[in-house]
Amino acid sequence: MDKTFKTTLLDHCQLDLSKRVLVGVSGGPDSVCLLHLLLKLGVPLVVAHFDHRLRADSGKDALFVRDLAQSWDVPFCLGSEDVQTGAEQQALSLEEAARIYRYRFLFEQAQQWNTEAVAVAHTADDQVETVLMHLLRGSGTTGLRGMAYRSLPSAWSEQIPLIRPLLGIWRDQVMDYLMQNHLLANLDPSNKDNRFYRNYLRNELIPALESRHPLLRERIWHTADIIREDYQVLEKSFLDKWNEVLLSKGEGYLVLDYELFSSLAIGIQRGLVRKGINLLRPGLRDIDFLTVQAVLEFVHTPTRTGHRDLAAGLYCFLENGSLWLASWEAVLPSESGRGECWAQIEAGVEYHLSVPGTIQLSNDWALSAELRNDANNFYANALSNSDPYTAWLDLQSLQDPLLIRRRKAGDRFQPLGMGGSSLKLSDFMVNVKLPARARHAWPLVLSAESIAWVPGFRLAHPFRITPSTETALKLVLKRSHSSGSVTRI
Amino acid sequence: MDKTFKTTLLDHCQLDLSKRVLVGVSGGPDSVCLLHLLLKLGVPLVVAHFDHRLRADSGKDALFVRDLAQSWDVPFCLGSEDVQTGAEQQALSLEEAARIYRYRFLFEQAQQWNTEAVAVAHTADDQVETVLMHLLRGSGTTGLRGMAYRSLPSAWSEQIPLIRPLLGIWRDQVMDYLMQNHLLANLDPSNKDNRFYRNYLRNELIPALESRHPLLRERIWHTADIIREDYQVLEKSFLDKWNEVLLSKGEGYLVLDYELFSSLAIGIQRGLVRKGINLLRPGLRDIDFLTVQAVLEFVHTPTRTGHRDLAAGLYCFLENGSLWLASWEAVLPSESGRGECWAQIEAGVEYHLSVPGTIQLSNDWALSAELRNDANNFYANALSNSDPYTAWLDLQSLQDPLLIRRRKAGDRFQPLGMGGSSLKLSDFMVNVKLPARARHAWPLVLSAESIAWVPGFRLAHPFRITPSTETALKLVLKRSHSSGSVTRI
Repeated sequence: MDKTFKTTLLDHCQLDLSKRVLVGVSGGPDSVCLLHLLLKLGVPLVVAHFDHRLRADSGKDALFVRDLAQSWDVPFCLGSEDVQTGAEQQALSLEEAARIYRYRFLFEQAQQWNTEAVAVAHTADDQVETVLMHLLRGSGTTGLRGMAYRSLPSAWSEQIPLIRPLLGIWRDQVMDYLMQNHLLANLDPSNKDNRFYRNYLRNELIPALESRHPLLRERIWHTADIIREDYQVLEKSFLDKWNEVLLSKGEGYLVLDYELFSSLAIGIQRGLVRKGINLLRPGLRDIDFLTVQAVLEFVHTPTRTGHRDLAAGLYCFLENGSLWLASWEAVLPSESGRGECWAQIEAGVEYHLSVPGTIQLSNDWALSAELRNDANNFYANALSNSDPYTAWLDLQSLQDPLLIRRRKAGDRFQPLGMGGSSLKLSDFMVNVKLPARARHAWPLVLSAESIAWVPGFRLAHPFRITPSTETALKLVLKRSHSSGSVTRI
Repeated sequence: MDKTFKTTLLDHCQLDLSKRVLVGVSGGPDSVCLLHLLLKLGVPLVVAHFDHRLRADSGKDALFVRDLAQSWDVPFCLGSEDVQTGAEQQALSLEEAARIYRYRFLFEQAQQWNTEAVAVAHTADDQVETVLMHLLRGSGTTGLRGMAYRSLPSAWSEQIPLIRPLLGIWRDQVMDYLMQNHLLANLDPSNKDNRFYRNYLRNELIPALESRHPLLRERIWHTADIIREDYQVLEKSFLDKWNEVLLSKGEGYLVLDYELFSSLAIGIQRGLVRKGINLLRPGLRDIDFLTVQAVLEFVHTPTRTGHRDLAAGLYCFLENGSLWLASWEAVLPSESGRGECWAQIEAGVEYHLSVPGTIQLSNDWALSAELRNDANNFYANALSNSDPYTAWLDLQSLQDPLLIRRRKAGDRFQPLGMGGSSLKLSDFMVNVKLPARARHAWPLVLSAESIAWVPGFRLAHPFRITPSTETALKLVLKRSHSSGSVTRI
């Protein structure tokens, strides 16, 4: 066992045996065994014990561990918390609360002692119990991996790894080791309490299954090991594709390339959605299958409109080839997923356009007007219509002053090229694929309450240049410089 | 349900609804439901029933299905086999034998009827049972995927896919569907027999687990779905790397690039070993974790010598940067993993070399001898020693005739450059890294029982050219042309 242990420390836990390690010691067989094995290898240690105060006599355990540390000449630190009360206050299960308080203490101490790692004494049996628990509670593939020999970053620290050097050693082997080395340990009486879920697995379910499947434990352990290593490979694939698929990101939102995303294998799509949700909601522990699936269904439903609500205050929507994942509280930028900044008018503002003159709109866009008398020239330009952000209008047809405003309910529009017939402006905007988010603040040019130009898209029929036009009004909507406010990839 | 069913047929099963499908119908609720759903969509069908003869009245089921097919105007075919006897003869479990006989019949019929697919009626509940069974029996990740909506190639056919359109539909939904459509089905009484493993899961274990975990079934189903899609991604990674790592292959053996292999992620290494074992032993259903792990341990143990026995008559060994996976019955080629064909002497043969003259060895190698009197020239050549397959010997030091033979126990050798001291030929061969497999038949050139040259490696000290050499014997070992007997990649 000593040899296996050392190999595990070096290969799996990646430990430098000359640096100090903090060991969490409950005083039970597993942690006493771990402490003894580490001591024998001469690893510098600190022993940390956390008193959950779940039993009246829990202080005895603390004393036992303190004495053990003293007798072996290892520094000792003690933490203590009323876990029962904490669990009630935060509506957590007792097990969950105990876990959180304990690890928080261990990593605080590890930081203070500046240790290389925090070592805990989970055994191969704990691994099997964890995997079964995850399977039954349904935490997906990520749960079936079980615990890792080494976790960094973990939920507790970005810098200090959490290591589990006994993960490949069975509880029976631990007991043999204690016997052979004449070591004493506490047997926590709460281990017998089957109201604790883990104890139910350990004392009831696993023995029952083992009566039919004698090799059950080994097999579940192997399964976890396989899935853990497979997952490393998958995560690499996810990361590679993530970098290809991500168009832009900002506070509370992510934009993916829809075309590319939907061409990927379903497994990759799911991995990317999990990754996205993780980035937007780092606190979320297990991302539900149905949440991930909701995004995929939304993406693959051909009649997609609007958005899809997801769990945890997130939603997704499609916009001209971009798949947005966002949180409801996020303020999305006025631009496309590929970073094209939209011309927009601020809320509650209208402008009169003087000729010649320029009006500054938001997002660094500006609308300018000038008169042109070079009939041959402007007529040819108006016919070619090459730049949708430039318009040539017949001055005679216009009434002073031109008004620049956002759209209003009931707005109608007579697009050039439809023989003068009119349609709802909102329908026109849908037809020309102006993204829904851009529509309400899109700048419109009006003459006497009639829409003369929808910049970027179309001139209105009544204001077009004709062979008899003598003077043209040239309008240009132009972005002056790029804004630096949005994170671009 | 009809809509879900159609979507599943098109998207997951990739079915062309205008082509004929063979449906396996036991007459139980699931298969009657499947048959009815397919009929409603107008898919052309054949109904196939297989009588396992496990109950005295099993013929009644066949009649029931035949009548059903007749009343719905669908062609019907019947297969029948004494599965009990078959199982005993082939030492298979009853369930396994029933499965094999049934599928063999279904695919034979599908071939005769030239159908697009074979459809079977596994439900979401069957999926959950399969996954749990695999977990408990320990068939690794591949087992946790459960069954697929569409399998091609399957164990039964390379051309005809096996489809499972009800895989996302629960048994309760099936029963509701039968009720609503006034359909009758047989309830197989053997479904209650808990001696059948699947029935134990269905009737005992799953209900017991569900009392603590009401969402158990859905969650296990989701887990299988996730793992199945993840596995598609993994298999793509495995295939990509397989093509990079494979150096050569032949009947019963595979050669991988050791350097590249051992640099890959553990998950990929395991995937490649599974792939290799699958190719060498296509019949092997579940490859044991420990078998895969044995290869990895062998590869990662720095003091590796010899070979490692694996399961199912396979073994692996390392040879000059190549990792070989082979079956014991395979005859390995006399060449390196990278396809360099070795000079070898057939068993039981010795040659006398006449000067000038040429001896033809096996593998298209030939050894030739000629006399040279151009002292200046050969002395310079001998000193430069640029080609290990050409040797210059002092004629005076040699005794006629030269003998060409394999090595013998006790052979010793005085390599040039060691001041005339001698060592065991076997040690010399190890030192110069002649692969173990090549050593016993490697050609040696001897003069009066003393080794004069080890072609490809070194001349013997006593026979070297000196400034006083008057006549040189020039020996050349050369491959005349490449043999076409080995599959090269």
